[in-house]
Amino acid sequence: MLTKALRGRDFITLRDFTKHEIETIIETGLALKQDYTLGRPHKLLDGKTLFMMFFNPSTRTRNSFEAGIFQLGGHGHFLQPSATRIPSLEGEDVAYKTERISDMVRSIQGMGDCIAVRILGDVVGWEYDKGLRVIQEFAKWAHIPVINMEDNIYHPCQGIADLMAMREIYGPDMRGRKVAVAWTYSDSTKKPIAPHHDMMYVSSLVGADIVYARPPEMRIDPEIEAAIKAQAEINGGSYSVTDSFEDACENADVVYAKNHVCLDLLPPVQQTPQNEEMAKLFGKYRNWIADEKRMKLAKDTAVYMHCLPCEREQEVSSAVLDGKWGSRALWTEAENRLHGQKAIMALIMQ
Amino acid sequence: MLTKALRGRDFITLRDFTKHEIETIIETGLALKQDYTLGRPHKLLDGKTLFMMFFNPSTRTRNSFEAGIFQLGGHGHFLQPSATRIPSLEGEDVAYKTERISDMVRSIQGMGDCIAVRILGDVVGWEYDKGLRVIQEFAKWAHIPVINMEDNIYHPCQGIADLMAMREIYGPDMRGRKVAVAWTYSDSTKKPIAPHHDMMYVSSLVGADIVYARPPEMRIDPEIEAAIKAQAEINGGSYSVTDSFEDACENADVVYAKNHVCLDLLPPVQQTPQNEEMAKLFGKYRNWIADEKRMKLAKDTAVYMHCLPCEREQEVSSAVLDGKWGSRALWTEAENRLHGQKAIMALIMQ
Amino acid sequence: MLTKALRGRDFITLRDFTKHEIETIIETGLALKQDYTLGRPHKLLDGKTLFMMFFNPSTRTRNSFEAGIFQLGGHGHFLQPSATRIPSLEGEDVAYKTERISDMVRSIQGMGDCIAVRILGDVVGWEYDKGLRVIQEFAKWAHIPVINMEDNIYHPCQGIADLMAMREIYGPDMRGRKVAVAWTYSDSTKKPIAPHHDMMYVSSLVGADIVYARPPEMRIDPEIEAAIKAQAEINGGSYSVTDSFEDACENADVVYAKNHVCLDLLPPVQQTPQNEEMAKLFGKYRNWIADEKRMKLAKDTAVYMHCLPCEREQEVSSAVLDGKWGSRALWTEAENRLHGQKAIMALIMQ
Repeated sequence: MLTKALRGRDFITLRDFTKHEIETIIETGLALKQDYTLGRPHKLLDGKTLFMMFFNPSTRTRNSFEAGIFQLGGHGHFLQPSATRIPSLEGEDVAYKTERISDMVRSIQGMGDCIAVRILGDVVGWEYDKGLRVIQEFAKWAHIPVINMEDNIYHPCQGIADLMAMREIYGPDMRGRKVAVAWTYSDSTKKPIAPHHDMMYVSSLVGADIVYARPPEMRIDPEIEAAIKAQAEINGGSYSVTDSFEDACENADVVYAKNHVCLDLLPPVQQTPQNEEMAKLFGKYRNWIADEKRMKLAKDTAVYMHCLPCEREQEVSSAVLDGKWGSRALWTEAENRLHGQKAIMALIMQ
Repeated sequence: MLTKALRGRDFITLRDFTKHEIETIIETGLALKQDYTLGRPHKLLDGKTLFMMFFNPSTRTRNSFEAGIFQLGGHGHFLQPSATRIPSLEGEDVAYKTERISDMVRSIQGMGDCIAVRILGDVVGWEYDKGLRVIQEFAKWAHIPVINMEDNIYHPCQGIADLMAMREIYGPDMRGRKVAVAWTYSDSTKKPIAPHHDMMYVSSLVGADIVYARPPEMRIDPEIEAAIKAQAEINGGSYSVTDSFEDACENADVVYAKNHVCLDLLPPVQQTPQNEEMAKLFGKYRNWIADEKRMKLAKDTAVYMHCLPCEREQEVSSAVLDGKWGSRALWTEAENRLHGQKAIMALIMQ
Repeated sequence: MLTKALRGRDFITLRDFTKHEIETIIETGLALKQDYTLGRPHKLLDGKTLFMMFFNPSTRTRNSFEAGIFQLGGHGHFLQPSATRIPSLEGEDVAYKTERISDMVRSIQGMGDCIAVRILGDVVGWEYDKGLRVIQEFAKWAHIPVINMEDNIYHPCQGIADLMAMREIYGPDMRGRKVAVAWTYSDSTKKPIAPHHDMMYVSSLVGADIVYARPPEMRIDPEIEAAIKAQAEINGGSYSVTDSFEDACENADVVYAKNHVCLDLLPPVQQTPQNEEMAKLFGKYRNWIADEKRMKLAKDTAVYMHCLPCEREQEVSSAVLDGKWGSRALWTEAENRLHGQKAIMALIMQ
């Protein structure tokens, strides 16, 4: 555990942090979880203000940040662009509608202690790195820390919660453990790929054997894939890709299976999102569902994970979700959003 | 007063509680009201989190819960379905739009201490028991308490505030006191019947002589009517129904007069809400208004009550609302929303 | 500094307060700013509740009030009419849509300690004094203080922040200092005149030489203009008007330049807002922009001020905003929203 290494830093992608720093967050999160369980006061951020800017709907992220900052003694502002002007990058200004991010940041940072932003999907026209660039623009101008609450590429707070859950279940060393990360079907073509990215990235940090299963038309970001592969090797694990969902599940310790968009049908590969074509493509793989048959290929003690919300009977069967596989991990994973983010805030905002 | 009888319980309908338990809530509410009046700290729920889920607009309920949990040392999240996915029952799932209630509840309950839900009217297509079923579904999955902030059938927090107000005005024993509960006219056909139900139910618990006055086409829920009649008899009061608003007002101590929907023009009696027909029906009874002429039939000391918001010059004349009858009770009734709900939270959330 | 002169009072227009009272607010704001900077606790309103009613979008006002009341130990409710009934004046009632302000106020004032309201522009059909009348109606019925968070005529909280910023830069005595207050161009015809009014009014209180520059078709409210002129004279300053933006900038200490609506193209002069005609009129004065050329006419030490959000390259060039002129004042001005309003609340809510 490191002591002051995180003070004042932004939390935008996990790749900005060393393995040691990420372990510090996990250990802090577990300590704060114990405080919470025992009802032991932990107002480490008494009087501090968090600005939470949501361009997209949210249940877990919003509630975990709002409850988290409050339990630490602070207060979170729930901000939506509909109730302010819309924060804009240079070249996007519209009179009386938008406000340049530089101006918004410099106006509010004197009033509080941290800015958290969620921005992805339709609101950025599925431009792949647009959400990230917006968050980076906030960070560029702010002298207070900025937290990424999810963009199209990264969902680092989810990655922390996933890693905390795996640690609670399997301990800190995942070497020799198989983590199957799969694409599964959804009626929707709007589900971001960020959770897959960060689930695989955190798994690579603890030496798991990661198998990414998806229909051949799907893929993750090659730059992130390279980072996952590199970290897996450094940490005693491995990374491979397969077309067979069953092969991935075979003897797995963790099955993380959910839908994600097809990157080749979105910008920058395409001019505009090809949603109809994506729906047609997805339709060919309707049988890619995390069901009992597949979960039975995994170890007896295997767990099913998903960042939630999920599409029941599309991404995953209710029997898996509500049965032993989901019950062993899902609610811990969701709850750890609270504890992981409290750790992040406590470490960077002091 | 009971000590720990309410800890950890849901607060969904008043009928789930004994008279003794409801008295405990009332007495606690009055004690907390005195603390508030004197500025005496009462942070009984320090650090606790309340999730407030509003499917419908709200002024009194939202502000009283948000201020109440804060004054007790906790924090309330103001949640609207537009900013999350929409909580769904089994069979209502839509990919990327809804989230099964079971999953939402199990995701957030680890982050806080109580869930409160308001759901009625248009958002459930006026399906009579749909809102209640949604709230019960929240309660089924939650291991933290669930509070009903109003459905189509019940508004138990309003009932508590009404009973507190009557107690402040007339004391704990209402035997021999006449409580007139009337339907009055409104241009709107969207006003739920829940407040009438719970006003009459709490009146029955303290032995009042309840007279329900309405045009012959209107009625309350027969099951609730039976419960009111039974409680009135047990507690030394009575329940009767009349077509004459004037007869009800005659010699009354309390006149509670407001509009409610016509149950026979809504599901399940009808396939779909018959709003036009209801407007036409209501139009026949435009003269059903709580006015000075009628209030003068009541005792000199009589009070006018209404859960608010009201339709002036439709349900009630401004002369009654702003005159002695309204002034004696209305603002105490509204303010008691705060104190009654603080009592409910303090008793169930500890 | 006065001690208890402000307790329990409404804060609706600066003209309701003496110069001495306004100085008390400024000094309190600077003291609270120092507490905040040093991290010294100042929970002067522990447990108090602020109702913030926003009929219009807001970034600075909302965040400064919400953070401010929290830092003082209280809690702010962020209320929007879409989530309640719409508060209405007499004669504007619509069943199940609106609630008379008198009733809303009397319902919620028992639950908290202060009501703040923002209402202007489109939501009042640009009726000049409608927003102010709504706020006055809140104040008429409330026995708790009411704060004006901006109407079409006044933005007193902005005036306080502006005055605090000038005091930090130039000290408490502005005699002999030139304050240029200018109209500049915007694509939008929706920007209220309230900030100009209150910037000039506070400048008049500290004896500045105020020069209001605008195209001949524009003007401020003559009643307020008379008040500014009178105060300027009393306090050793002056007030004049010019058609030449350059003349105003010449040798100025402060250049406050932003767009405002053309009062003669709005009610009550016109029946309805003449937005197209206003856009055409504005188009004639596209070159009225606070640019480097003009700022160089001012003193070397001059500052550029704006209440923000601004329209870059319309009202002001980015070179001025992001250069030395803006940097010297703008972010202090924005940040002082927090400290000034904390002072107002601490002084009136105790």
